[in-house]
Amino acid sequence: MTTQPALSPSPTPSGVDALASTDSPSSTDAPSSTDAAAARSRELAASIAQDPTRHRMLTGDRPTGDLHIGHYLSSLRSRVALQDAGVDSFVLIADYQVITDRDSVGRLQDHTFSLLADYLAAGVDPRRSTIFTHSAVPALNQLMLPFLSLVTQAELLRNPTVKDELAASRRPLSGLLLTYPVHQAADILFCQADVVPVGRDQLPHLEQTRVIARRFNARYADGAALFPEPSALLNDQQLILGTDGRKMSKTRGNVIRLAATEYETAALLRKARTDSESTITYEPERRPEVANLLTIAAGFTGETPEALAAAVGSGGGALKALVIEAVNEGLRAHRERRRELVADRAQLVEILHEGNARANAVAEATLAEVRRAMSMDY
Amino acid sequence: MTTQPALSPSPTPSGVDALASTDSPSSTDAPSSTDAAAARSRELAASIAQDPTRHRMLTGDRPTGDLHIGHYLSSLRSRVALQDAGVDSFVLIADYQVITDRDSVGRLQDHTFSLLADYLAAGVDPRRSTIFTHSAVPALNQLMLPFLSLVTQAELLRNPTVKDELAASRRPLSGLLLTYPVHQAADILFCQADVVPVGRDQLPHLEQTRVIARRFNARYADGAALFPEPSALLNDQQLILGTDGRKMSKTRGNVIRLAATEYETAALLRKARTDSESTITYEPERRPEVANLLTIAAGFTGETPEALAAAVGSGGGALKALVIEAVNEGLRAHRERRRELVADRAQLVEILHEGNARANAVAEATLAEVRRAMSMDY
Repeated sequence: MTTQPALSPSPTPSGVDALASTDSPSSTDAPSSTDAAAARSRELAASIAQDPTRHRMLTGDRPTGDLHIGHYLSSLRSRVALQDAGVDSFVLIADYQVITDRDSVGRLQDHTFSLLADYLAAGVDPRRSTIFTHSAVPALNQLMLPFLSLVTQAELLRNPTVKDELAASRRPLSGLLLTYPVHQAADILFCQADVVPVGRDQLPHLEQTRVIARRFNARYADGAALFPEPSALLNDQQLILGTDGRKMSKTRGNVIRLAATEYETAALLRKARTDSESTITYEPERRPEVANLLTIAAGFTGETPEALAAAVGSGGGALKALVIEAVNEGLRAHRERRRELVADRAQLVEILHEGNARANAVAEATLAEVRRAMSMDY
Repeated sequence: MTTQPALSPSPTPSGVDALASTDSPSSTDAPSSTDAAAARSRELAASIAQDPTRHRMLTGDRPTGDLHIGHYLSSLRSRVALQDAGVDSFVLIADYQVITDRDSVGRLQDHTFSLLADYLAAGVDPRRSTIFTHSAVPALNQLMLPFLSLVTQAELLRNPTVKDELAASRRPLSGLLLTYPVHQAADILFCQADVVPVGRDQLPHLEQTRVIARRFNARYADGAALFPEPSALLNDQQLILGTDGRKMSKTRGNVIRLAATEYETAALLRKARTDSESTITYEPERRPEVANLLTIAAGFTGETPEALAAAVGSGGGALKALVIEAVNEGLRAHRERRRELVADRAQLVEILHEGNARANAVAEATLAEVRRAMSMDY
């Protein structure tokens, strides 16, 4: 599986994150707009803390592979927390995004149901969260048409992801990748979400969504907020790297999948890269591999990486034993629920159908409003 | 109203033709592909003559203004003839295309019902032809997503219309105009039409549709023809110009609308430009204005322009009297039906709703096939 710079130029390169990446600030962001987005994110977090039920969140992933511990620690858990707090949640399985940068859908069905199983196992509750696939919501996809009229070719080509792809020129840029930020606007605006948890690398895409909402409102809604402008809820957590201290990548074999067995998990972690110093300390800059292992263990135990380093004292073997224990303990309940869920495909299908039906109802209501605003209600 | 080079760089510049332009060969067409398209067009015409019921036709117009005699003579009549012969007909009112190159939908409702009234008055039979609007068929519009993945940015930018727009740079190119040929592919392929009556200037767009059909079939249908490759049915009729001998343009006031009164028609034609020679002859190259008037009269009377020239003998006044008579006689029944139709908006709405319902059923069936082929049938 290749990385997917289009959708998550992110530390989660097994490529399933459509909206949930957690990258460090991108050099292509203008500092001022990033600062403004960060300020909005803080305001949004405060508003959610005060009254979560006034907010609607859109998150999602590309079904290009299994979710791994990076997704779990950096996005999945916080989505569930927001849902549990009372934020109305929409969770998108972005199946059309699989083909933005490749010629085949791959094992799409497997990946889709694997995603769904991990969502449910992690606590996404289909009664409170609407889980749906792109391909099942035509009224959402139709929003591409009016939204494409609101952006210029120059804006599409100025998008950092598109520019990076053009510069790298690994393969010809597809029309779908070129227009991806517009489609993402449809994802967010169709349900009038105001909360979009993303990494900083996704800010230019979200800014495009905000621009589209603003232009639509000005042009067709007399300035009324038919589409509220969504805000990023920035994720500034520590990046999770692979077991070799590099970006996670399926081809590098450095990824711990949520679906992995305890044995596989232990085997991968036992081969994890550390360094030649025997004393264990948490120094992310100077000792990134050791720090990464401590961060993983901290994510699953709730302890700080510093406290865990002190507890281990010295020895790579002792560190790895602690991390193996933390991950396997931390995922035990998740993995057990996951096993039960994947054993009952019919139930998963039913849950997806219910989510798709709900997403369709919302999309059709929004499209009806849009058609009315555009005088297309014949 | 501005001209719309995007959709019909055509002799019918009041801008309502989405697919029906009748331009002369474009310099941007490669001769070989144009020759091949011409050969396919001849084969298609022969096949339609043999068994019309084996064919499905897609035609359409942008609802940006009233239809005029150019549309009537060069496209509307031949569509009706194909329908009457038994070709299954889909007629698209391309409302989203109105905003490919402008910031407002204008008097969209008026233009839409005006188009519909002219279709019906001209003999498009809603029991045999499916008349529908873009905005009412989400499953058609969803096809944009898979189809965009099958074209590259380079192909989008190579499209002659897009290139012309970039060169002219009258206004920034919108994302909707940039992706217009892909949306046109969705228009044609959603109903698996094999017949698309167009002018030569539209061939590059149709070629893009053929490429998309081919790639989809190869990538997702194991080479089976899930989408048949449509062929152009080339319209090589004589161009109809405005009453001043120039391209028709509402702003130039040289357009005879089908909705015009007999009085308005006569007034416009009386001011028509001729030349200083008193003898009337049909010499399109040397005497374009006179030839254009003779072509119009010929279109409505069924006589040849040469015979009409001989019948007039000499005098611009006599020529104009003949043309006025021909147009007003030729359109009398059309205009009477048109008046009755526009007087009953509720009936027009009902006809459009029925057409939209039929188009939706067809689009949903096609989208279901597409989703199955792409493993998106969860």
